[in-house]
This record gives sequence, structure tokens and C-alpha cells, in this order.
Amino acid sequence: MSLYESDTIAAIATPPGEGGVGIVRISGSKAWQIADQLFLALDKTPVSARGHGTFAYGKVVEADGSEIDTGLALVMRAPKSYTREDVLEIQGHGGAVGMRRILRRALEAGARMAEPGEFTKRAFLNGRIDLVQAEGIFDLIRARSDRAASVAMEQMEGKLSQQFDGIYDAFLEVAANLETTLDFVEDELPDDVFSGIAGLLDRTFLSLDELLETWDEGRLLREGVRVVILGRPNVGKSTLLNALLGFDRAIVSSTAGTTRDTIEEGFVLDGIPLRITDTAGLRETECEIEAEGIRRAEAHGAEAHLSVYLVDASQPLHEEDRVRLEKLDPDKSVVLLNKVDQGRQLEGVEGVEACLVSGAGVEELKRAMADTLEKGADLHAPPHAVISERHRHLLILAHREARQARAFLNENVEENAVLASEHLRSALEFLGQVTGRAYHEELLDSIFSRFCIGK
Amino acid sequence: MSLYESDTIAAIATPPGEGGVGIVRISGSKAWQIADQLFLALDKTPVSARGHGTFAYGKVVEADGSEIDTGLALVMRAPKSYTREDVLEIQGHGGAVGMRRILRRALEAGARMAEPGEFTKRAFLNGRIDLVQAEGIFDLIRARSDRAASVAMEQMEGKLSQQFDGIYDAFLEVAANLETTLDFVEDELPDDVFSGIAGLLDRTFLSLDELLETWDEGRLLREGVRVVILGRPNVGKSTLLNALLGFDRAIVSSTAGTTRDTIEEGFVLDGIPLRITDTAGLRETECEIEAEGIRRAEAHGAEAHLSVYLVDASQPLHEEDRVRLEKLDPDKSVVLLNKVDQGRQLEGVEGVEACLVSGAGVEELKRAMADTLEKGADLHAPPHAVISERHRHLLILAHREARQARAFLNENVEENAVLASEHLRSALEFLGQVTGRAYHEELLDSIFSRFCIGK
Repeated sequence: MSLYESDTIAAIATPPGEGGVGIVRISGSKAWQIADQLFLALDKTPVSARGHGTFAYGKVVEADGSEIDTGLALVMRAPKSYTREDVLEIQGHGGAVGMRRILRRALEAGARMAEPGEFTKRAFLNGRIDLVQAEGIFDLIRARSDRAASVAMEQMEGKLSQQFDGIYDAFLEVAANLETTLDFVEDELPDDVFSGIAGLLDRTFLSLDELLETWDEGRLLREGVRVVILGRPNVGKSTLLNALLGFDRAIVSSTAGTTRDTIEEGFVLDGIPLRITDTAGLRETECEIEAEGIRRAEAHGAEAHLSVYLVDASQPLHEEDRVRLEKLDPDKSVVLLNKVDQGRQLEGVEGVEACLVSGAGVEELKRAMADTLEKGADLHAPPHAVISERHRHLLILAHREARQARAFLNENVEENAVLASEHLRSALEFLGQVTGRAYHEELLDSIFSRFCIGK
Repeated sequence: MSLYESDTIAAIATPPGEGGVGIVRISGSKAWQIADQLFLALDKTPVSARGHGTFAYGKVVEADGSEIDTGLALVMRAPKSYTREDVLEIQGHGGAVGMRRILRRALEAGARMAEPGEFTKRAFLNGRIDLVQAEGIFDLIRARSDRAASVAMEQMEGKLSQQFDGIYDAFLEVAANLETTLDFVEDELPDDVFSGIAGLLDRTFLSLDELLETWDEGRLLREGVRVVILGRPNVGKSTLLNALLGFDRAIVSSTAGTTRDTIEEGFVLDGIPLRITDTAGLRETECEIEAEGIRRAEAHGAEAHLSVYLVDASQPLHEEDRVRLEKLDPDKSVVLLNKVDQGRQLEGVEGVEACLVSGAGVEELKRAMADTLEKGADLHAPPHAVISERHRHLLILAHREARQARAFLNENVEENAVLASEHLRSALEFLGQVTGRAYHEELLDSIFSRFCIGK
């Protein structure tokens, strides 16, 4: 049973949609009481009388005895469960409606609907995992590539937590040493005591910086690389999207301005997860719908990690293209010269040559995209723990406090030791929020509300 | 172990996408051998040494020992499993990439990728369920409303199979009686023997007809009701779609011809699952993209169970509207008069009045849609088994054969008994294909290939 609250929560734990199996998960002190109301085991032994690590086959029933589904009931007794509470899992036949009916029955029988991430939140509050591990679970579920999954797995298993704990312990040691000096009268302090402590602190900065450097890679792995396709109307942007995806996602026509709604699809290139966006063609227009599309296209272009800019090679360079090409960041963009088969008129623009209608040049483009992306981050080294935006934010705050503490240690003055000590306490407070040694309700909300319901 | 093939199959059994839990299911004689390769239980006891109905917590590992995930391994020993073979389920943390990695590991360790519906197919071939029950499982997964789920559950539990079996047995009795008469010499036959058999046969027609009548309802429950929004450009079709869905799905503007791609979304109205389609406005146009949109709109209109036809009430009746309104089937359509707030100019057209921009009239429209749909089928009677298109097709074939048999029974002629008997055998053959007493490979393919992989 949970130490902090005793209500029992329930949620569908499998992804929404059609599948062979769906699971409703129930956690809390009323799990067995609920189980006996909604599940009739074929062998007649009630779920409440079953041992940890066993499951039964039977029927899920409404209060009036009518059958909702047949399936399994899994028994995980506290504290040997995900949440460290009593956990019941009902495995049904999958399907959105069927799973909702089982959930509804569980709620009727005494559970309340779980909030997003609440099972994992309980695992944290009951001491089974720390916050960084919880975030690793989140990242594993959201991973869009093998590499991202491996990195998340390391984090879930506590590798990243160890690094944070190492830094925390190092700061704690510095703080303890510093506080010891406060017990001395000023003239009893050895001359080099502060410089010794300062040296200790300097070493922790190294580990802190090392961790901070993993952030860029982590962001790409977690969020996926945002790629946007840009170019003037009718240059072949939708054809390119379809070619990259391998199926006809967008309506393609020879009329300029066909695409209006922004179309976004995901695919994986060389193990790197991409979110690719097709946009309305960039041109001056009187049409308000098209203008809205172009506004959205430009906004996407500004946010993207990589732009693929298409130019029509069968035409002389258009003034609008010239202006936009000049603005492109070469480290974040690939230029594609389309329609090279229709008589080359374009001069002075370098890029991958393609004839998208026939598919020629698509593989070369993928190569160029991958090369450009890899310039930014070494995505092919062995997987290792990487920090998230939240970790980075807290590390930077801790870093700032520690730097201020460090500044006070340049002089052997007792008052300075007091001030340095206060800054180190603040640094420890921030570091503690990373793994959850210290936490407040908003911190937990900001982490667990991003989870799906049922995790 | 399966009687018909001994290879071991594996698939992801949970829906694709993000969730708290994902399952990889493995079935066949090599299940435990594979389990011991990829799963390391925390308590060190190998999965192969565990009993039916138990599960273990542990790690899923690659061949080189690196960790893919942590989770559960469920042991279901033949014949007490879904397939009646040895079945292993690995429960992981969910997430598309993580689940694919576990599956890949299972394949590497000796399983082969399961075909769609192959687990259920094995359940059928190993005698655990019949074909009608298998289809019930499929319908339960696909159910879009409570009612559809209840009906599918009845079917999965064998209620519909009982009815088919009853008809089969009745035909079998008639056929047996008839064949007995063949052993007599002609003049020894009692005068009324054929009329007695004919009477028996007539009674089976009643049950057959009763079952055939359930087909219409079944189709609506399985496929969902197709609703299409029609009307001239700029009358408010996209605004209506957004109002019905409760969120902005389609780009709305005051310019006629904004929508081109057909937009389809699902929602449930009064327990009835709907697939609602917004279409390009119906008008004569020179624009080829818009013309393609209009062609698609007209095709959708022809297929729909229900059309919502929008007319602009602030304008006199347009000739195109007049022509199309005349063609509408009143049992399958609702007319909506939009923009009633902008000065009524329209005359002679009845319909629900609305001002969609303000939301006025949307509830009245939903009411009218539900009323019109319920005219067609009584969707609010208690759930009962309903037949599918496949069942109907086979029942009609059986019906035809039985009718031909019946015709031969009008005269007491021995040759007729032989012919009637042959037709009854054909009828039995068709009826047998319904539940799978008789089957061939194409029949199984046509059923199981519609399932998702992992079921």
C-alpha cells in the first residue's frame, strides 16, 4: 500500500487503437476487492486469493453479470510491483471500445481514473525509481529510433542517475568541508583550507560540464529532427514528400499552389528519427488561404533543424529564390535542384540534382540530408546517457550557484565561507531536484503530466 | 504443440504507438527455448522451468547480453493457451521502437514473424474456437461502439455459432431422412414420406431467414455508418465538420473552394459509430484539382448511409441545389439550412435550421441525423448475434441449394430423392464453411488476413 495516498487508480495501459491484446492496469489498496467484482476466473478461485506472480484466465463481467470480455488477470502484490502497491492487470482482447468498457467497470467497482504518469509517479513516491529513471521510462516509450531507445534504457536503469548522484555527492562533500571550517575560529583556520576546498569544487565543475555537453544529442534523440521542405510553388515539394515517405501522402498536381494545409509525417533516416513537413509554396499571393499556408511554412522553416530547399533547375534563378537561398544556413540546409531533365536554365546554385517525378536523385538527397545532420551531432558513437532540457536547466542553475560559491573561496575570510556555503546549499537544492532527492508538487506535475495515461 | 505445423511465430500483440505497456507474443514448440535466450528473470529461474499461469520479472536482452527492456514473461503452456500451443508473452515498456527491438530479438532467437491473424488461426486449427467465434474476436477488436462490442462478445462466446450449428444439424437431419428413403425400393415408400421431409426442411428455412435478417444491423455495427457532408461551395461544410467533431479539423475560410482533399473523421452519435466525410463543394469548375475533389465528393455521396446536405438559406435556391435536392433519398439524408441569421431568401426547402458559425442548430442536426439513422435499423434493441457479409453469402448459397432440394420433394419419385439429396449435401457444404466444419485454405486466408498481426 502506498505511503502517501491510499486511493486506487485505473487506466488503459496499452496504446489506443486496434491490437491483439489490451491491458487495464489497477493499482492501490482496493485492487483485489475490485478484481473480485469484475473478474470471474475459470477455475473459480477469486483473484484476491491468488499469489504474486500468477495469472488466471476468466471473464470480465458487468455488475449484472453480463460479459464484457474474456482474458487474463495478473496479480502483482505490494511491494513487488511497478508502483510498489497492489497491482492488478486485466488483459483483454484489445480494441478501443472493449478496453474502455473494462476501464469503466473498474471505475464503477471503486477505482478512480489515473492521471497521466500516475503509476510511475507512485513508483517514484514509493522509492522504486528516481525522477531521472522515470524520465528514462518516458523516453523509452517515446523513442523514435534504436539509438534513442538504447539511451533511454540506460537512463531507465539508472546510469544517468549515477552521474547526477556522483555530482551531488561531490558538491555535498565540498559543502560539508566548508561547513566544518565554520566551526573554527577565524585565526585557527589553516591558510590553505579554502584553496583545498576550491580545488575540490573545480573538479566537480568538470563532471558538470561533461554532462551539460550531452544535451544537444539528447534533444535530437527525444524530439526527432525537424525537417521542412521549402521552395516556390510547383517546384515539386509534395512530390518530394511522397518520394521520401514511399507513399502518396499529398495531392500532387501541375497547378501551382495545390498544397495549403501543412502536412507532417515521420520517418527514420540512418537511425535518426525525422519529422518532415511539407509546406505551401513560398510566393507572393493575393489568396488569403494560400497566404496563411505560406505564413505557416515560414514559421516551420525557422524552427527546423534541417531545411530542404527546392529550386526549379529548368528555369533561370527567380528573385525570390535568390533572396531566400542567401538567407539559408549551410549547416542546416540542403539545396535540391529539381527538374534537371527539362533543360538546365539555372546557374550559380549548387545542390543535389534530381528529377523527382522519376525518383532520380532521391537517394543522393537522403545521403546529403544525413551528412548535414551528422555534422551537428555525433549520432553514431555508442549510446550513452544524455541529459534532457529539464536536467540542463537545473544543472545550469546549480552551476551558477556553485560558481558564486567558488568566487567567495578566493579569499580566506570566514564571512565568505558562510556565503559560499549558502550558495552551495542552493546548488545542492537544484541538483536534488534532478533525481528527486528534493521535490515539490509542481516539479512532479511538470514531469508526470507529459506521460501517457496508464503509465 | 500444434498438430499441423511446428514452427514458432512471434508478433507485437498490442496496438502500435505509445502506451504504458506493450506485449510481444510468441507461440509454438520453441517458445521456451526462445524465452531462455532473450529473458533473464530477476530470480534466476529460467522461463522454461516455470509453470503455466505464472509470470516473472526480469530483463529482455540481446544476444550479446545488452539490455533492451525490463518487463514480464508470462508462461502459458499447451494446451491451456490462446493457440493451444506453448505461448510466451513478453510485456515491455511499450513504445514503437522498444517493442520492435523485442520482436526482432525473438525472430533472431528462432521464431518467425506471424502472419495477420495467425495466432487466432492456430486457435481455430487446434479446435479451440470455430470460424464464427474467430470473426467475433475480430469484430470485438474493431468494435466502434458499446453495442457493437456486446454483439461481438456474444459471437465470440459462441452464441451465433449455436444458431449456425442448429441450422446445420436441422439440414443434416433432413439429409439423413432423405438418404434413408434411398434404401427403399420405390413402391415400398410410404406415400407421405417426402411431404414429411419437406415439412422438416420448410422449418429450417424459417431459422435461415431469421438469421439472414440480422445482416443489415451487423453491417452498420461493424463498418460504422458512413456520413457525408454535401453542398455547394462556401455553404459551411467544413464549419459543420468542425462543429460536429468539436475541434478545428479543416481549414475554414470565406473563400469558396477551400477544401480539396477529402477529410474523414470518426465519432460516435448516440452509441452509433460514424465515419464522417467532408468534401469539396459541389460546383462546375475549371480547376482540375477542385474538379478531382468534387469527383471524390460525389463518389462518397453515393456510398454513404447518410448524407447531410447543406443549403445557404440566405440565398434563393440555386439551380444546382434544386437538382441535387430532388435526387436525395429522404430516408438517407438530412437537409441543413445554414446562415438562417443572414436574412432568409430560400423558399420551398424543408430542413434543420442552423447558423453554424455561432453553433446554433448543431444539436438539432445531431438529433435529426440519429433519427434518420434509426429509421433504417433498430439499433436500440438488446444486443443479439448478427451475421456478417461472409455468413450471408454462404447462407444465401445454402438457401438456394436447399430450395432446389425442396422443389424435388414435391413429387414422390425416387430419382428426385437422389437429386434433392445432392442439393442438400451442397447446402451442408456451404453451411459447414460458416463455422469451419468444412474449410479450405483460401477460406481461412480470406478470414484471417483481415486480422491485425499479433492477434
